[in-house]
Amino acid sequence: MPGSRKLPSRGELRTWREFIETTEALRGMLSARLHSDSGLSPGDYAVLLALSEATGGRIRSSELAARISWERSRLSHHLGRMERRQLIRREECATDNRGAEVVLEPAGAEAFRGATVPHLRAIRELFVDALTPEQLAAAGEIAAALRDRVRRPPPGRGQHGEEDGGVHR
Amino acid sequence: MPGSRKLPSRGELRTWREFIETTEALRGMLSARLHSDSGLSPGDYAVLLALSEATGGRIRSSELAARISWERSRLSHHLGRMERRQLIRREECATDNRGAEVVLEPAGAEAFRGATVPHLRAIRELFVDALTPEQLAAAGEIAAALRDRVRRPPPGRGQHGEEDGGVHR
Repeated sequence: MPGSRKLPSRGELRTWREFIETTEALRGMLSARLHSDSGLSPGDYAVLLALSEATGGRIRSSELAARISWERSRLSHHLGRMERRQLIRREECATDNRGAEVVLEPAGAEAFRGATVPHLRAIRELFVDALTPEQLAAAGEIAAALRDRVRRPPPGRGQHGEEDGGVHR
Repeated sequence: MPGSRKLPSRGELRTWREFIETTEALRGMLSARLHSDSGLSPGDYAVLLALSEATGGRIRSSELAARISWERSRLSHHLGRMERRQLIRREECATDNRGAEVVLEPAGAEAFRGATVPHLRAIRELFVDALTPEQLAAAGEIAAALRDRVRRPPPGRGQHGEEDGGVHR
């Protein structure tokens, strides 16, 4: 049937569903544990992690958005909430348009310190230890391949490119 | 250092971060495409998919929650919104406590039909075709291993079990 090659097979779809549903369930379980252990959301944790790794505990909001792969508007709203909880502060910078500088506050550094060990332990239990070393390596390769595709989706939104051997890779 | 084995290594953490950030970016891109193609959210699509696969286009809300791995309260709110858009309806059942029966409405069936081909094409482009056959098979195995762990997390939330050889698997 012409055109049917454009759609995934039943087995491919089964793999897709298991993959995406499981990663969502994993994310949900880690999020619940993080919250019960430390009162932080995964978004709070990602921001605090990026800040704790940044030189001087400060980073441009535009760079932060890229680091944690968030839209800038979503990040801006989230930072507003974190600022009200005194986890971070923002320093506006008039001289360029790369956004405010986001600065780690003492309460944020303390929250991050308290959250880190239980969160890392949860990651080990629910992800690292659940996989064989071969599966863990494959997970890294799969992530790299998917990241490349998400960053450079095929042109034309599937309207062309099917006939040049790309389908059955 | 005693206890340090409880935490993931730097390389394991890098793999974890790439894996979870990439799957989130992929989910976000598919969600945006689904919405622009059909006006449905991924949650809408998951519900309509489960209903379209169910005998007679109807399914218990408790079973639906299990099928799509959602908390029942989250599902209930979501179904309320879908009901107002006449995509589904709910029929209360007084004789048991498995929740209302969720029934596919004609508008829901039509929305699902219109959404399916572009959504499946996006899944192929952004997931299936991004991976080699070996990576796709590994993705299925990884999902199965993670699903087992999420369903049966190790006891004691990491307080024990580290000394019996489970760490370096």
